[in-house]
Amino acid sequence: MLPDFSDLDGFRTILNSATCADMNAREAAVARDRQLTKPPGALGRLEELAIWYAGWRGTARPEIRSPQALVFAGNHGVCAQGVSAFPAEVTAQMVANFNAGGAAINQLASLAGAHMDVHALELDRPTGDFTQSPAMDEQECLAALKAGWEAVDAKTDLLVVGEMGIGNTTSAAAICNALFGGDAASWTGRGTGVDDAGLVNKTRVVAEGVALHAEDARDGLDILTRLGGREIAAMAGAIAAARMLHIPVLLDGFICCAAAACLQHTSPGALDHALAGHQSAEIGHKALLRVLDKEPLLSLDLRLGEGTGAALAIQILRGAVACHSGMATFAEAGISSA
Amino acid sequence: MLPDFSDLDGFRTILNSATCADMNAREAAVARDRQLTKPPGALGRLEELAIWYAGWRGTARPEIRSPQALVFAGNHGVCAQGVSAFPAEVTAQMVANFNAGGAAINQLASLAGAHMDVHALELDRPTGDFTQSPAMDEQECLAALKAGWEAVDAKTDLLVVGEMGIGNTTSAAAICNALFGGDAASWTGRGTGVDDAGLVNKTRVVAEGVALHAEDARDGLDILTRLGGREIAAMAGAIAAARMLHIPVLLDGFICCAAAACLQHTSPGALDHALAGHQSAEIGHKALLRVLDKEPLLSLDLRLGEGTGAALAIQILRGAVACHSGMATFAEAGISSA
Repeated sequence: MLPDFSDLDGFRTILNSATCADMNAREAAVARDRQLTKPPGALGRLEELAIWYAGWRGTARPEIRSPQALVFAGNHGVCAQGVSAFPAEVTAQMVANFNAGGAAINQLASLAGAHMDVHALELDRPTGDFTQSPAMDEQECLAALKAGWEAVDAKTDLLVVGEMGIGNTTSAAAICNALFGGDAASWTGRGTGVDDAGLVNKTRVVAEGVALHAEDARDGLDILTRLGGREIAAMAGAIAAARMLHIPVLLDGFICCAAAACLQHTSPGALDHALAGHQSAEIGHKALLRVLDKEPLLSLDLRLGEGTGAALAIQILRGAVACHSGMATFAEAGISSA
Repeated sequence: MLPDFSDLDGFRTILNSATCADMNAREAAVARDRQLTKPPGALGRLEELAIWYAGWRGTARPEIRSPQALVFAGNHGVCAQGVSAFPAEVTAQMVANFNAGGAAINQLASLAGAHMDVHALELDRPTGDFTQSPAMDEQECLAALKAGWEAVDAKTDLLVVGEMGIGNTTSAAAICNALFGGDAASWTGRGTGVDDAGLVNKTRVVAEGVALHAEDARDGLDILTRLGGREIAAMAGAIAAARMLHIPVLLDGFICCAAAACLQHTSPGALDHALAGHQSAEIGHKALLRVLDKEPLLSLDLRLGEGTGAALAIQILRGAVACHSGMATFAEAGISSA
């Protein structure tokens, strides 16, 4: 079902009419978990993960066979403000690296058995510099949301979304600051590695963008339009589509979660089908996961994006589902109970 | 090279003559890491993991092809003191479950591509009740150490050791209390799920065992003999053998780490080839990892043993090594630097 992408209100309507997990499947999964050959609760968080996954897939004994890793790339006009340690042409160079199989996400998607698709979104047409004008107009944002929505393979059973875009930690920090308030400095980190002076400049840019746009924005989608980027909007579109298709999502780092937060802010519950795969080393991510009420599966100090943290977490969720669906019950194994 | 298993002193000599990581390979891995297509440090802990693994495998660009999961099982005389919520016959029943493929570790080893071997150690001959006598005599402990040593496949490139043994959290708590002091209560947890009264009784048993044996024990191997169990000694033997064979080890939960701690206490540095795979929910494990100076890769509240937490962590280490050895360099990918 393709939603109405003619204006943002159409997208808002779709978000607010989203589906839920299957409570019968969830209850059946809880019942199965209690019969498995382990002391109750002994698989810790794996039990809760498997039950959550079962609910979203609508079956008490699910499998994960076909994960998809989507990587979106976009360029940012705000790079004119000198916010990144790397030049903007690196976005296109890294897209070539993704397509050649040489990036970190290629290795991690392959290890997780995930099909990887790369979508470069108008790299030769950066978004507007949000210290001067909105990053995107409504139609540009809708086009990117739609690109993300359409990139999701309806046959996949687990989705990871990642990104590449020089300057996009600045955009993500501005989104978070506009959505959740606080100091610009509390959301602004070093990204790919700006120095102390670069961080001061980046924080100024975030504060200026928020001051220029936050007042006119009525919800997360407005903020996404004014302060986001094409790859960020595409991630939001993909996450929203996955919910419609009952495809659970593992969120990646700060930028992915900023995209997700725009959905949550617009429609509470829009991330019920999503878990946090990894807590990044980027300064704002811990606070962002807290406001999203997501406990990360991993915390390994990655700060690369691309979907790498979420791709690593696929294996944890797979382990949870493999135990849940593959283990013998006490009755099957003939084991004495406590 | 099979060490002298005629007495514990022979084993001590072997432990103290252990090999080290290859510093040249390690340095070459550091140099490779700096050229990979990512900002420096952006893969966080994965970088350090890959470099550590490269050092122990003696190559700058290693692979993980053949992990091995070893599960040892043993029975404990201390069960006579009513320390477990499950009857002792469950040890043998779970061994049958391992052999039939129905346990959690079967699913997780399979997912990680690890070959799994199960060694049941004289299940019909439990160790002595350590509140009354030593759990094992020197020859019994040596036989179990040897069983563990010989179980390691020299061709494996990553080892996980796990266990099954009703009553063995009591044994592990007593080992830790004897090795590191403190209150018996601070090392004694609920294991498979004893109730409040059971926990009080279990704590008493641990304290009595330590009071009876700790004074006569001169190092970790003596403590292992008096308070351990066959599966615990076998894990220690396997971990020691892996070091000789330059096979990195992922440690599992509380009982596995208690076995490892006996080696470390006997010969500092004996665990340099080992990482903590997972921090268990069992009460003493966090403190034990702290004294072993091991930061866990995962913390998902598992408390099952069997090697499950370490088997999950195989995938994290594999991800680290896959990125390190599979990614393109900046030069290969033609990417601009910062």
